[in-house]
Amino acid sequence: MSDKIKIEKKVLSANDRIAAEIRAKLNQHHIPSFNMVSSPGSGKTSLLEKTLAHFKDKYNIAVVAGDVQTENDANRLLKAGGQIIRPIVTNGMCHLDASMVEKSMAEFELDKIDLFVIENVGNLVCPSSYDLGEDLKVVLISTTEGDDKPLKYPGMFRRSSVMVINKTDLVEYCDFSIPQVIENAHQINGQLEVFQTSCRSGAGLENWYDWLEKLIQSKKAQ
Amino acid sequence: MSDKIKIEKKVLSANDRIAAEIRAKLNQHHIPSFNMVSSPGSGKTSLLEKTLAHFKDKYNIAVVAGDVQTENDANRLLKAGGQIIRPIVTNGMCHLDASMVEKSMAEFELDKIDLFVIENVGNLVCPSSYDLGEDLKVVLISTTEGDDKPLKYPGMFRRSSVMVINKTDLVEYCDFSIPQVIENAHQINGQLEVFQTSCRSGAGLENWYDWLEKLIQSKKAQ
Repeated sequence: MSDKIKIEKKVLSANDRIAAEIRAKLNQHHIPSFNMVSSPGSGKTSLLEKTLAHFKDKYNIAVVAGDVQTENDANRLLKAGGQIIRPIVTNGMCHLDASMVEKSMAEFELDKIDLFVIENVGNLVCPSSYDLGEDLKVVLISTTEGDDKPLKYPGMFRRSSVMVINKTDLVEYCDFSIPQVIENAHQINGQLEVFQTSCRSGAGLENWYDWLEKLIQSKKAQ
Repeated sequence: MSDKIKIEKKVLSANDRIAAEIRAKLNQHHIPSFNMVSSPGSGKTSLLEKTLAHFKDKYNIAVVAGDVQTENDANRLLKAGGQIIRPIVTNGMCHLDASMVEKSMAEFELDKIDLFVIENVGNLVCPSSYDLGEDLKVVLISTTEGDDKPLKYPGMFRRSSVMVINKTDLVEYCDFSIPQVIENAHQINGQLEVFQTSCRSGAGLENWYDWLEKLIQSKKAQ
């Protein structure tokens, strides 16, 4: 085994220990959680803006928003009505790791949180290797990126539980087939639940909200 | 210094040695080269398809096409008229490194090549750290990704010499300002040369071809 692989294994196993602690803490407080992953610009922040605005008067949603260099995403989420938003600036790192999330969560009052969301760095490769203690991963893909992406970046689609096909308002202008991307994604992961949304037109958002509502209620009942 | 950082430094310095060898070899044969980087789905392969078809009868363009899992991009480039195309499948790795490129170039007859192109893995973070022996990096950004991306992923824009704003045919449907993305990019790197293209409509491709033509001719004259 090369030195590089040995060190990577060590880093990942340290990460997994912290992730397990985060998971235990969230479970103890009956807080469902997901880790949102995608290429840069697929619409993670836009979907969260809509989600925060929609649930503003009903649920307390905490978000840690990862970014390579700026706090722009966190600022957008605050403007959208988010109350419990923390930026994580990775300073050039290509993914979030569990220790960053743990530090960022430290000040949260967990008794007052109904849903915990991690917005990862925009990157369809590296974030797939890092467990952040979440219940599940939600991968976004936009209709402008090409329907072959699940086959070309299979790790992320294999490790996700939900795929959101976003920017459906642009599909008519792109060489992108929604049935094809679903078929490609299911070839990698037959269990993937699929949503189709347009944050611009609002199409499909109700289904996404319904799913979140159920996620929150079923975790509260546990 | 942590073990992880030490190993990363070692890996990068080994990479840089191989990159220097590649660069020396390309210079010796007066072959200009660029390393194409972007998010997944910005249109690297589409722009190369157009470029290969355009120069088919004039120049021999060699391409190594990096991909996490498939050889789809290389196959598309062969169909577009590329003669000297080699796929590199990284098996999950998030970037190309110089040793992959060196191996892939081994069978090239350098005397017969006018331009060497590296199509990197779709990732706006990690590939920026790896010198592959190229003359320069060309970063693509599509109008569907948001005009804030140069500020959010500054490493790639700082290390690139050229920015191609692609999918300009979609700009009217997106919240994307071309002047704003140029301003943001120049804030990171004032030297960036900018092209605006639509591989779909063909708009702006002539300027890109003219630039390539000059790149090839000036290297031949050296």
